[in-house]
Amino acid sequence: MNSLPELMKSFGDRFKTFRFPESPANLYQPNDYFLSLGGKRVRPVLCLLGNQLFGTISEDAYQTAAAIELFHNFSLIHDDIMDKADLRRGKETVHKKFGSNTAILSGDVMLIRAYELLATINPAYLPAVLTLFNTTAREVCEGQQLDMDFESIETVAMEEYLHMIGLKTSVLIAASLEMGAIINNAPAVDRQHLYNFGLNIGIAFQIQDDYLDAFGDPEKFGKTVGGDIKQNKKTFLLIYSLEHTEGNYKERLNKLLQTDNDDKVTQVLSIYKSCKADLWTKELIEKYRSSALESLSMVNVKEEDKKPLYELAEYLIQRES
Amino acid sequence: MNSLPELMKSFGDRFKTFRFPESPANLYQPNDYFLSLGGKRVRPVLCLLGNQLFGTISEDAYQTAAAIELFHNFSLIHDDIMDKADLRRGKETVHKKFGSNTAILSGDVMLIRAYELLATINPAYLPAVLTLFNTTAREVCEGQQLDMDFESIETVAMEEYLHMIGLKTSVLIAASLEMGAIINNAPAVDRQHLYNFGLNIGIAFQIQDDYLDAFGDPEKFGKTVGGDIKQNKKTFLLIYSLEHTEGNYKERLNKLLQTDNDDKVTQVLSIYKSCKADLWTKELIEKYRSSALESLSMVNVKEEDKKPLYELAEYLIQRES
Repeated sequence: MNSLPELMKSFGDRFKTFRFPESPANLYQPNDYFLSLGGKRVRPVLCLLGNQLFGTISEDAYQTAAAIELFHNFSLIHDDIMDKADLRRGKETVHKKFGSNTAILSGDVMLIRAYELLATINPAYLPAVLTLFNTTAREVCEGQQLDMDFESIETVAMEEYLHMIGLKTSVLIAASLEMGAIINNAPAVDRQHLYNFGLNIGIAFQIQDDYLDAFGDPEKFGKTVGGDIKQNKKTFLLIYSLEHTEGNYKERLNKLLQTDNDDKVTQVLSIYKSCKADLWTKELIEKYRSSALESLSMVNVKEEDKKPLYELAEYLIQRES
Repeated sequence: MNSLPELMKSFGDRFKTFRFPESPANLYQPNDYFLSLGGKRVRPVLCLLGNQLFGTISEDAYQTAAAIELFHNFSLIHDDIMDKADLRRGKETVHKKFGSNTAILSGDVMLIRAYELLATINPAYLPAVLTLFNTTAREVCEGQQLDMDFESIETVAMEEYLHMIGLKTSVLIAASLEMGAIINNAPAVDRQHLYNFGLNIGIAFQIQDDYLDAFGDPEKFGKTVGGDIKQNKKTFLLIYSLEHTEGNYKERLNKLLQTDNDDKVTQVLSIYKSCKADLWTKELIEKYRSSALESLSMVNVKEEDKKPLYELAEYLIQRES
């Protein structure tokens, strides 16, 4: 059983050598550039983790893991155009560096390349892997659409926001684990538990991301705190607070959303605290984290074999002692 | 053996009922809108033609045909963004009607939906169909990239232009026929001949398109003649003329490319004729058409069974008597 760091290194080393064809350079170079920006490669490692839970890691698992990482990068390239994002991992995004047309077409070919890798895996489980890959890919697009839709709506219900987050970020985490499991012929019931583990850990991670952007230690978090607040981004904290403040506080929060003052972050944070959005958010993270662990506990393999997955849950969800 | 019109009707009737999911409406409605604009559905019918050449048309052939048509429409939606085209089949393009972000994401999900249809076909030939589909999809992107690259280059060699046309328009025609053949277990050598038939007929069709835009009968052609000339579009006629005019004529042609006068079309046409670009182009169409028919003649099935494919060649390449 490989540990989480071992698998991260093993996948990272292989993926570093992955290249697009040389020509046409204007189509493929932007993709090599984007992949060179790196990333944690969490999703492909999840595929390997799901795979080794039910046997030896196969070449097909590595191929599928790479396909998953290509899909993820395709979605980032296109999302960056839609979100007009200039930077990704501190470097210029593809559309910023090469123009939107290139970003559209290079993204398309990144997605197609993912399917090229999938097409090589054993036909015995190709249909199952491909079907899950497709459903997930479509759900990720649905999540991105809902995210864009929500930007222009004043009020988003917590349930709708959770649904969007699930589609945009968690289904791919869940499916990555399950695809690995499929490739080692895991029973359907275990595949489902593993999927649920991934789905819940993914949602917990996203809630934590919202929490840390507001209340995280800037040094540990690695970015300035309050970015979401400055941009009026709909987050678990904001949606909860809008649903749970009344009278004076609600009015102040709504007014703050229309301002851009220097003390906006401080003031919004104080409202979050006054309605206990911070505590509620931490409880919500814990709820999803423990649901995830419960699903993992139901997967019918030896507990000690699950150790790398527990490591992963800890890696993704940092708990204060 | 179904005739060409029978297959066109049969596929058209089925595809008319194809719908995307209802929600999120902002993601899926643009795709239903785009498909409702219609089209000749030539590529999916080619898949059915390739399929019936080697047996009865199967449900899998219809699924693959629909996947091909979805892929084609995905590429049109994204190309229209890149080409800043406002109209498609006389109606607003997706990015014009719904915005670029929607056109990117709806296009993405159109492509993924194509793969969802493919994932349902018999695992016995899924890998072969998927591999050919992927290669072709990537080549179509390469063709679009080269087409965009050529816009900003002054001189494009005829060979490069032919290569681009082959990728952008012909490989999908060729692959559609071959995918149908794969699904009825056609021998590899016949698959190759059928592919070559499609590739050559596709190139002949594209050369004809360039020819008709300059010399076609506006009533028969259905659009104003000279559009390519007005836009300085690189075409077989222009590239040939630039390569085969000298001295005075070459200078005049290059000057005309920098003007936008009322008589530009008339003058360019007269230069095309003076260097016999019109005759050369017609010979080139004939060369590719006869190569196509030669490949078709080598497919090892009864000649009478090929009748719908000869019908197709005639439908695509109109010869003056």
